Amino acid sequence: MANTRRDFIRRAGHAGGFGAAFATMQSLGLLQTIGYAASTPDLIPESGKGIKVAILGGGIAGLVSAYELGKAGFDCTVLEARDRPGGRNWTVRDGTSVEFTDGFKQTANWGPDSYFNAGPARLPSVHKGILRYCKELGVELEVEVNSSRSTYLFNESTFGGKPVEQRQAINDTRGHVSELLAKCINQNALDQELTKDDRERMLSFLRTYGDLKSNYSYTGSSRSGVAQLPGAGPQEEELREPLGLHALLDANFWNGMLFEEQLDMQATMFQPVGGMDRIPYAFAKKLGGVIQYRSVVKEIRKTETGVRIVYARGSSEKAIEADYCICALPVTLMKSIPNDFTPSVQQAITDTGYADASKVAWESKRFWETETNIYGGISFLSSGPINLVWYPSSKHFSETGVVISGYGAERNSRFGQLPDVPAKLAASREAVEKLHPGFGDQLRNPMYVYWAKIPYNQGSWVNRGAGFYSDAYKAFTEPDDRIYFAGDHCSRVGAWQEGAVGAAHRALEMMTTRIRSEQQARAEKKRAVG
Amino acid sequence: MANTRRDFIRRAGHAGGFGAAFATMQSLGLLQTIGYAASTPDLIPESGKGIKVAILGGGIAGLVSAYELGKAGFDCTVLEARDRPGGRNWTVRDGTSVEFTDGFKQTANWGPDSYFNAGPARLPSVHKGILRYCKELGVELEVEVNSSRSTYLFNESTFGGKPVEQRQAINDTRGHVSELLAKCINQNALDQELTKDDRERMLSFLRTYGDLKSNYSYTGSSRSGVAQLPGAGPQEEELREPLGLHALLDANFWNGMLFEEQLDMQATMFQPVGGMDRIPYAFAKKLGGVIQYRSVVKEIRKTETGVRIVYARGSSEKAIEADYCICALPVTLMKSIPNDFTPSVQQAITDTGYADASKVAWESKRFWETETNIYGGISFLSSGPINLVWYPSSKHFSETGVVISGYGAERNSRFGQLPDVPAKLAASREAVEKLHPGFGDQLRNPMYVYWAKIPYNQGSWVNRGAGFYSDAYKAFTEPDDRIYFAGDHCSRVGAWQEGAVGAAHRALEMMTTRIRSEQQARAEKKRAVG
Repeated sequence: MANTRRDFIRRAGHAGGFGAAFATMQSLGLLQTIGYAASTPDLIPESGKGIKVAILGGGIAGLVSAYELGKAGFDCTVLEARDRPGGRNWTVRDGTSVEFTDGFKQTANWGPDSYFNAGPARLPSVHKGILRYCKELGVELEVEVNSSRSTYLFNESTFGGKPVEQRQAINDTRGHVSELLAKCINQNALDQELTKDDRERMLSFLRTYGDLKSNYSYTGSSRSGVAQLPGAGPQEEELREPLGLHALLDANFWNGMLFEEQLDMQATMFQPVGGMDRIPYAFAKKLGGVIQYRSVVKEIRKTETGVRIVYARGSSEKAIEADYCICALPVTLMKSIPNDFTPSVQQAITDTGYADASKVAWESKRFWETETNIYGGISFLSSGPINLVWYPSSKHFSETGVVISGYGAERNSRFGQLPDVPAKLAASREAVEKLHPGFGDQLRNPMYVYWAKIPYNQGSWVNRGAGFYSDAYKAFTEPDDRIYFAGDHCSRVGAWQEGAVGAAHRALEMMTTRIRSEQQARAEKKRAVG
Repeated sequence: MANTRRDFIRRAGHAGGFGAAFATMQSLGLLQTIGYAASTPDLIPESGKGIKVAILGGGIAGLVSAYELGKAGFDCTVLEARDRPGGRNWTVRDGTSVEFTDGFKQTANWGPDSYFNAGPARLPSVHKGILRYCKELGVELEVEVNSSRSTYLFNESTFGGKPVEQRQAINDTRGHVSELLAKCINQNALDQELTKDDRERMLSFLRTYGDLKSNYSYTGSSRSGVAQLPGAGPQEEELREPLGLHALLDANFWNGMLFEEQLDMQATMFQPVGGMDRIPYAFAKKLGGVIQYRSVVKEIRKTETGVRIVYARGSSEKAIEADYCICALPVTLMKSIPNDFTPSVQQAITDTGYADASKVAWESKRFWETETNIYGGISFLSSGPINLVWYPSSKHFSETGVVISGYGAERNSRFGQLPDVPAKLAASREAVEKLHPGFGDQLRNPMYVYWAKIPYNQGSWVNRGAGFYSDAYKAFTEPDDRIYFAGDHCSRVGAWQEGAVGAAHRALEMMTTRIRSEQQARAEKKRAVG
C-alpha cells in the first residue's frame, strides 16, 4: 500500500513539475517533515540531445549541473581552472600543497589517515539534496559528531581560567533558569499568565527540566558531570558543585552553548568517510572527460544563438561555443573576467563582497580522546583570538588525528589582526594549550587555509549584508539571456553545499523550461507554416 | 614533556596501587575530567603462577576476570552454560535462535547486515573501562547516535495525535521558559535575587537562550524546524508556529526530552561495528580454551584450601577444584544452585530481584531515513504500551535496518499486561505506525527478547529498590572466603557493561591483595622457622 502511494506521488510529481511531488505528499498526510524535502530537477531523459552547455567552474554547482544535464542527454563541458574538482570542497591530505595568491606555500606532511576538510566539513541531515547525491554516487558517509557534551566552553577570565565541560555549563544553566522560574511561579509572579492547573504542572515540569530538588532549588545534577563516577563496591557518585549563575553570565558561553541548536548544526550530522572531497571526485568519476581541468575562463561572451567562452589552457588560449552557459564561478572571479553581462548583473558582481574565512589544522596524538574524553564535537572559546577547537569525527581511538584550532572570517577579527602566519599558528596552538594544559606542544605540521588567498576562490562565502537579497541576489537568480548562474550565492542556503545543489537545480529548471517552450514554439510555427 | 609527565604518573600508579594514578594526575592539574577515569587492575605479571581460579559465567565480568588474571599468569577456567560468550551482551542476527524458558522459539530470518543488540547497545564515552578493552582487543567502534533532533516525541492525546519533532519540542519549550522568565524579570519579580547588572545580563542571555524577539516574546525559531527550508532563488525560510506551552504541558514529553542529558546517555556514544557481541567474542578469541562452553554450574562448594565447582557438560557431571572462585553468575541463577555461601550471602541472593526488560526488534526498509529524515536516535511515546522507538546507528543510507519498537521492564507496565506475544508484536508495530503513518506495515520478521524468559539469565538487571545498597549489595561486594562476586550487581553502575568491568577489577584487586598478603605471611613464617 505504501509503495502504491509513493508511486502515485512520484507520478504526480512528474506531471506537475518541480515541487508538485511534495505538495501532494503533504496533502496525503505522509510527509510530516515537509520542510526538509530535497529539490529534484527530474529532467526528461534525451531532452537535451544536440544542445551544448558550457559550465564554468567545477565546484558543487557546476558538477551537479553537468551530472544532471548529462543524464538528460545534453552535451556539456565543464571548464575548471584547477587540476581537481570541488572548488571550496577541498580536502587537505599528506602531500597536498596549499599555495596562497601572495606566494606563501605549505605542503602537508601527515600520516596516511590524516586529513582535514578546508572548506565544507559537515552534512546536516536536513540537507537532503547533497545527501541524495552521496547515496546516488556511492559516497560512504559516517556520523560527524558536531556536538558532544564532553567538549569545553572557555573564557580566560572566568572559572579560574579553566575550561568548563559543555555538559556542566548546559545543565547548570538549565538548573538555574528552572530554579528562578519556579521561584517566580511560587511567588505568584505569573498568576496572570498561568491557570492554577498549569501553574502546578509548570512547577512539576521545572523539577524535571532543571533536575531541581523538591523545594525547587538547584543544587547540582549528574547531568552536569560528576566529581566522581559511581563504581564498584563502595564507590558512590559525587556531584560537582554547580557553576554559579553570576559566573556563567560573566563567561558569556551562550553562543557556543546554543550552537548545537541551529537547525543545520543539529544532530544527526554526516561526513564522507575519508574526506569531503569524496563527493566531487565521485561526480568527476561519473563525468569523465566532460570536465576540462586547468582551463581558466578568460571571457564570457554572448553570441546570436548562445555563448562563447574564451579560456586559457596552459599557454594556449581556446574558445568554446555553446547554446547555453551555466556560470558556476565564485562572484570574486567574475569581477575580473571580461563579459557581456547586462549592467544589472555587472552591478551585482561589483556589489557582492566575500567573507575571508580561514581554518588552521594540526596533526596530533589524540590527547583530547585519551586524556579528556572528547570524541568529536567543538570546544568554544569566548575570549582570545581563536574562537573554537574542532575535534575529528573520523577514526576515533586511533593514534593521531587532525584537530582544527580556529575557524572563521578574519576581517575585523582578533585573529585576523595578528601580524603574520607564525603569529596565527602560535595563537592556534595556544588556544589548544588553554583548553588542554600541557598538550599544546603535541600539535605538529600545521596547515593554514585562508580562503581569501586561495587562487580561483579569493574568498569563502558571500557576505549577505543589508541589501544583498534586494539587489545583487535578484540578478544572480535570474538568467542573463542564455547564461544561468549557479552556486551558493544563488541560494538562501549560503556557504553550504546544499545551497549550490539547490541553485544548480533551479538553474536547470529555468533553462530546460525555456528550452521546452522554445521547442514548442518552433514546432507550432512549423505546423502553422506546414 | 607530556610523555615524561605521563610516565611519572604511570609509575606513581604502580607504586601506590589502585586509584593512586588518578589522584596524582589530579594534583598535577592534568586530568580535568577526573570523574571519568577507568579502573585498572594492573596485576603484577607472573604473580598468579600456580594459582587456579574457577570463573563462573562468561559474561563481561567473567571474561574481564579471566583476561586480566590470565595476563598475570593465573590458571583460569571459565564455565559458561551457553555455547557463546557474553551473557546479556548478545547480538541477534540472521539465523540466531531465541528460545524462551517456556519453550516459545523464534529464529531471525534477516539480511546479512541486519542485527540488533538484545542486551547492552551503547557505550557512553565516560565508560572508559569497557572502551579501554575495545581498544586493547581491537574492537572497531562507530558512533551510536543516541539522540537526534529529527526523532519524535508523541502523545496520542495532544497535537492532534501527531508526532512532534524533538527539535520542535526542545526549542519551543526553551523559548517559552525564556519568555516567562524574562517577563518575571521585567516585572521585577527577581529584584531580590539579581543585581541590576545581572538583571540586564539575564535578559540579554534569555534572548539568546530562547531565541526571543527584542521585546522578549517567543514567536518561533528555526531551531524548532521550519515549515519551509530556505532554498534557491526566491524560496525563503518559513518558520513554524510554536507549539503552545499549555499543550506541551499536556503532552508531558519531559522524560523523553531530557533523556539525552543523562550523563551516561550524552553524546558522544559508541557501538561496536557489526554488533555489541564483538566485545565478548574478542575476549573469547584471546582466552581460547580457557572458556568451557555448555558447562552449567550445579554446585558451588568451599573446600579447606579453595573451592570445588560441580558442573554439567552434556549428560556428564564434572567437577573442578580451584584455589579461588570468581562467581560472575547473575543472581537469578545463584538462587537455584546448591552452595556453601555464608547465610548473609544466601540472604542477599534471596532478597535480590531482577527487572524483566524486553526489546522488540523488526527488520524494515529504512523509511525513517528516506521519508522522515531520521538517522539514529530514539523517538519517545508518552502514551500507549510502547515507550520508545529506537532507530539503528549502523549502515545509514542502506536499504534495510533493524528498528526497536519497545524496550523496558514489563512488570507492572502496560506492555507487560498485554495478553500474549502476538498482542505485544501488534502493539510494537502500532507504535511505529503512529509515529510513521502508513509505514507500520513495512516491519518484517520481529524478534522479541524477553530477558525474564531467557535461559541462564532469567532477568535483565537487578532491581535497586530501598534497602538493596544497605543489605544485599554489601554481601555481594565482599568476598565469601575464597569466592569473589563480580557482575554489574557488584557495582553502582547497574545494568551497564562498565559496571561489570569495574566489579571484576575490584574483585581481582581484593583477591590479589589477599594472595599477596598470604604469600608474605608464608614467607615470613618460613624465614622465622628457617
